[in-house]
Amino acid sequence: MYSFACDYLEGCHEEVLKALTETNMEQLPGYGTDRYTKEASDEIRTACQDKAATVWFISGGTQTNQLVIDTMLQPYEGVLAARSGHVNVHEAGAIEFSGHKVLVLPSHDGKVAARDVEDYVKNFYNDENHEHMVFPGMVYISHPTEFGTLYSADELKALSKVCRENHLKLYLDGARLGYGLEADGTDVTLPLIAQLTDVFYIGGTKAGALCGEALVFPGGREPSHFITRIKQHGALSAKGRLTGVQFAALFKGNLYGRICRRGIETGMQIRQIFKEAGCSFYIDSPTNQQFVILTNDEIAALKQYVDFSFWEALDETHTVVRFASSWATTDNGIRQLREAVSCCIHRK
Amino acid sequence: MYSFACDYLEGCHEEVLKALTETNMEQLPGYGTDRYTKEASDEIRTACQDKAATVWFISGGTQTNQLVIDTMLQPYEGVLAARSGHVNVHEAGAIEFSGHKVLVLPSHDGKVAARDVEDYVKNFYNDENHEHMVFPGMVYISHPTEFGTLYSADELKALSKVCRENHLKLYLDGARLGYGLEADGTDVTLPLIAQLTDVFYIGGTKAGALCGEALVFPGGREPSHFITRIKQHGALSAKGRLTGVQFAALFKGNLYGRICRRGIETGMQIRQIFKEAGCSFYIDSPTNQQFVILTNDEIAALKQYVDFSFWEALDETHTVVRFASSWATTDNGIRQLREAVSCCIHRK
Amino acid sequence: MYSFACDYLEGCHEEVLKALTETNMEQLPGYGTDRYTKEASDEIRTACQDKAATVWFISGGTQTNQLVIDTMLQPYEGVLAARSGHVNVHEAGAIEFSGHKVLVLPSHDGKVAARDVEDYVKNFYNDENHEHMVFPGMVYISHPTEFGTLYSADELKALSKVCRENHLKLYLDGARLGYGLEADGTDVTLPLIAQLTDVFYIGGTKAGALCGEALVFPGGREPSHFITRIKQHGALSAKGRLTGVQFAALFKGNLYGRICRRGIETGMQIRQIFKEAGCSFYIDSPTNQQFVILTNDEIAALKQYVDFSFWEALDETHTVVRFASSWATTDNGIRQLREAVSCCIHRK
Amino acid sequence: MYSFACDYLEGCHEEVLKALTETNMEQLPGYGTDRYTKEASDEIRTACQDKAATVWFISGGTQTNQLVIDTMLQPYEGVLAARSGHVNVHEAGAIEFSGHKVLVLPSHDGKVAARDVEDYVKNFYNDENHEHMVFPGMVYISHPTEFGTLYSADELKALSKVCRENHLKLYLDGARLGYGLEADGTDVTLPLIAQLTDVFYIGGTKAGALCGEALVFPGGREPSHFITRIKQHGALSAKGRLTGVQFAALFKGNLYGRICRRGIETGMQIRQIFKEAGCSFYIDSPTNQQFVILTNDEIAALKQYVDFSFWEALDETHTVVRFASSWATTDNGIRQLREAVSCCIHRK
Repeated sequence: MYSFACDYLEGCHEEVLKALTETNMEQLPGYGTDRYTKEASDEIRTACQDKAATVWFISGGTQTNQLVIDTMLQPYEGVLAARSGHVNVHEAGAIEFSGHKVLVLPSHDGKVAARDVEDYVKNFYNDENHEHMVFPGMVYISHPTEFGTLYSADELKALSKVCRENHLKLYLDGARLGYGLEADGTDVTLPLIAQLTDVFYIGGTKAGALCGEALVFPGGREPSHFITRIKQHGALSAKGRLTGVQFAALFKGNLYGRICRRGIETGMQIRQIFKEAGCSFYIDSPTNQQFVILTNDEIAALKQYVDFSFWEALDETHTVVRFASSWATTDNGIRQLREAVSCCIHRK
Repeated sequence: MYSFACDYLEGCHEEVLKALTETNMEQLPGYGTDRYTKEASDEIRTACQDKAATVWFISGGTQTNQLVIDTMLQPYEGVLAARSGHVNVHEAGAIEFSGHKVLVLPSHDGKVAARDVEDYVKNFYNDENHEHMVFPGMVYISHPTEFGTLYSADELKALSKVCRENHLKLYLDGARLGYGLEADGTDVTLPLIAQLTDVFYIGGTKAGALCGEALVFPGGREPSHFITRIKQHGALSAKGRLTGVQFAALFKGNLYGRICRRGIETGMQIRQIFKEAGCSFYIDSPTNQQFVILTNDEIAALKQYVDFSFWEALDETHTVVRFASSWATTDNGIRQLREAVSCCIHRK
Repeated sequence: MYSFACDYLEGCHEEVLKALTETNMEQLPGYGTDRYTKEASDEIRTACQDKAATVWFISGGTQTNQLVIDTMLQPYEGVLAARSGHVNVHEAGAIEFSGHKVLVLPSHDGKVAARDVEDYVKNFYNDENHEHMVFPGMVYISHPTEFGTLYSADELKALSKVCRENHLKLYLDGARLGYGLEADGTDVTLPLIAQLTDVFYIGGTKAGALCGEALVFPGGREPSHFITRIKQHGALSAKGRLTGVQFAALFKGNLYGRICRRGIETGMQIRQIFKEAGCSFYIDSPTNQQFVILTNDEIAALKQYVDFSFWEALDETHTVVRFASSWATTDNGIRQLREAVSCCIHRK
Repeated sequence: MYSFACDYLEGCHEEVLKALTETNMEQLPGYGTDRYTKEASDEIRTACQDKAATVWFISGGTQTNQLVIDTMLQPYEGVLAARSGHVNVHEAGAIEFSGHKVLVLPSHDGKVAARDVEDYVKNFYNDENHEHMVFPGMVYISHPTEFGTLYSADELKALSKVCRENHLKLYLDGARLGYGLEADGTDVTLPLIAQLTDVFYIGGTKAGALCGEALVFPGGREPSHFITRIKQHGALSAKGRLTGVQFAALFKGNLYGRICRRGIETGMQIRQIFKEAGCSFYIDSPTNQQFVILTNDEIAALKQYVDFSFWEALDETHTVVRFASSWATTDNGIRQLREAVSCCIHRK
């Protein structure tokens, strides 16, 4: 049964697998000192139009979030995030495990508003007891968000401005960044992100790699002794080649962008299928995750043909479900979904 | 230039790569719930002759050490380890990062002696101030050790006995376990380890895999809510398939043993080459790491032909260097070493 | 100028000081093994009608909160608290410093509702991704709350019931417990608290002592190796006599209750003064903290005669301020407040 | 029975108690903002001849050690200490609880040698794998040491020099500092300590106070947001007056020095009593702790007359025991000890 349950169902893109195969028996030094890791870093610096950026490859997203937040914050600082933010909800306390509080902001379709950050900081410093409270030290955003939504360039600029004025770090979690960059109508680019944030990562796991995220510090402003801190967090891979070779392949000739575009195209096809069936959406997502409101009966029927994931109950009879596409979604999969929908959903 | 600098210079074994390639586009669920991870666990349970064992796959060794020690100890407990133990020296404080002290025991060629554990525990509880001290809660050993040495079955049994009598967990770090199991003359087997320890891991990174270690809890006695704690440590891979497929391939038909045997054979060839050249050894290692004492002049000469790693200075003119072989060491590599030695080392 | 700024402005009650003076040169063993600490524990056990309870004396409130939450939770668990709860807002991240997340519940005048706990737990376990989230492991409540409000016996019973049904610990922060127990009309007693909670503390710092809080584990169900964990948190006093002597004095003949009653009586006088002046209250508090809504002009005028503390801005022209009384509030202080109010506040 | 078991058996010095009594009902603001805390800080600055020094009062020694080490180290740094150092042995893992490793140096009668620090640092940075190890960031010393021994001014200067050359912080734990400053023949003074160290504390608990240690940052070089970090560690007292009043009393007219001198005089009397009885000493201590080697029979006999503490077994028949005097040791106590020794110990 074809699955739209998430965007990390397949292994890696065939070009990535080819690169792994071709370099497999080459003897390479460890801990990210190999030439493919250097090549991948160079390609990413170029793509970011930031020659001074430093790039590190970490095996997974939770690891990266914990590492970035812990090493870029002072011990008395916490991270501001939308209530719906991944670090607030779905990291099993990995942020608190390293000693930091997640300070909650309102979620605007998954996004953080510059105005809310400004208010938070102003209220904080106006509070005469603020020395007894956790200092805001960073703003965490995801792009696309957990709801598939995107910041506009203006929204990012406003966030960056308020962060810089208030000495907050701005961290962009790009677990699905490729799908954000390739979405129709977006004006956010990799160089823009490198200009506006203090740190961000380019997700590989959900975008063509077997594993791995590329962590970028624009301008090379990384925490001191960063390699030791990666190791201390248990996040330093002996065979750095594994992520190095993959990201070198992904960023050569912008393979990354091209394959993520496929995720957008199939995402829009999924959207169209449900739109035509008369369904409404929980949120308006321009990326590879589509959140559809279905009746519980429709869900039960559809589940016999295709797989997808539960998001949240809306009321007694309606539920939000998520259909995720990716670089790997096939025409055949889309066809099966179309048939299943036409078979199971009958609206007027 | 052929390198003997460490045992993780190449990618993965061709059979492992083949398995990754063949399963690459298969849609599989995440977080270790895929069928290959189940298959790998089953194969490992069989190899351990322990049907109740639970198996988890973690991406790297430091991660695994931190996770095991933190989750199996009470917060007021520390881990006993040889002074030379990896967790005491080369983990960048990853153990202390999670709140636990490493309690130091003498190193006997890298090994921990049961008698030293017994003395430590006895002295600890005899000390009327022991409630103001860190309680010993676990013994950490590596097999092979950081010096390539091996425990005998009797030594392991003695350790296991003293641990059980004193309610200490026994943890065996098997980063190079395959080379230990395949060494000539060893009487330590996987089922024996499963009987004698509380937890151990079977290293993949240094033994045929691109990444990954198989963490085994004999009898299924793992910490409660273990998956949440893996996530909290940032160590839960979204694409669990990556390690699942690799370990399924490694343990089908004992590929793991067969390829590690290659590391032993080439290790013994390295040993023979230096023995015939009249060199002496820092330590007598029956496994894939050979610690040779060379003059600084010999080292400078050899370095022009083959690569290897510095271990420690012995005196003004002599240094200990390490030559590591592995499953991947080629006949050609050995030949180059032989020629280099015959060219550079002239003893009488 | 007389101050109502908080309830820890003076040293200790004269009877407590007398006990410290009389025992001062007595040689006593350390770390809580002295006879006064034993006596204090016995008196508290009697007051709680719980012979099996264990009692520990900790120097301050933040220390106690961090210690209790960290040692009674599993590492993968967090603590549920009202949004306004002290541990969520004013502990400078001491809870997260020890690795635990504060999970936020609605605040009902500072209180947590049993129904909200039930909903939280139900939603949590219904979420198929809950293993990727922080498990709820404890409910934190304060009594009186940060707003001076009180739980009824029925409310506490409902909370206790939902906690026990769901295997959550119930922790009552009694920084101001004496004022809660002595309030008019309350049906909550010390024995009831000991029956319904898993752990609570009886505040000394705000109720007659120079320092110290008495931490009670009903039924003696304290975390194992608790003394070592107190030490590990840096919270074990060498001269345990300091808190032992004070609490022995406070609980002999219920001095604690009698002096806290003074705080209630003066609190009610403050309330009456503002009521008669036509002021309204931010919240209806039956205890020693009164939250009055004043105009900014009234505040400026009053500040010339008595001291009190800012709570929060209500609108452009009105502010909530807090007047706190205590065991030490004098008739003279009340008189000064009455005169100041009659002089500065003119409503009709 | 008179006790020499430790140096914190009595409450506080009568002058300190008088100050607490006289100020008891004064209304004072919290968290160290009261005028007595300011006065105490001023007196200490004067005593240290360091006008820029900042002073904080912490309730106990473990708390202070954890706080200083955690806040002055970077997260990837550990603290160098003698094997016998309090932070290595008797803090129940409080240092590791906050994430830092104790890096062990040889103990020279409890002291750390500058040469050993130099060697450690040199070896560390020469190790090509040092990025995988815990960086040395601080040297911890105690003065007097756990064995009652003292550094000379030259030894302290050498330590300070090697620390500054290698960017290590130098931290002096002065739990018993008064006894060190008042010892016969010492050339170490408070101003010298302020010149040579980065941080140190002046112990109150063992030297005339009910509780409290005065933490001094020479030159005011304290970690940023220090008050928030104290709170985060659970170490910020609401009633800062308790330590403020005590230290103001202790440092007015050098009461501290005068009463600690009493501990030295009685310590020397203890030494003389055992010397005359023909006993030998485990270590030669010029301060208030005397470590005597007795036969187990002598110990059993003495224990019927006076109390003292076990230190360590020397051989089958001999044990090291500790006799501690203090500011509070009475002539009567010394007389009882003299009689007990003459009654129980018969050497020739």
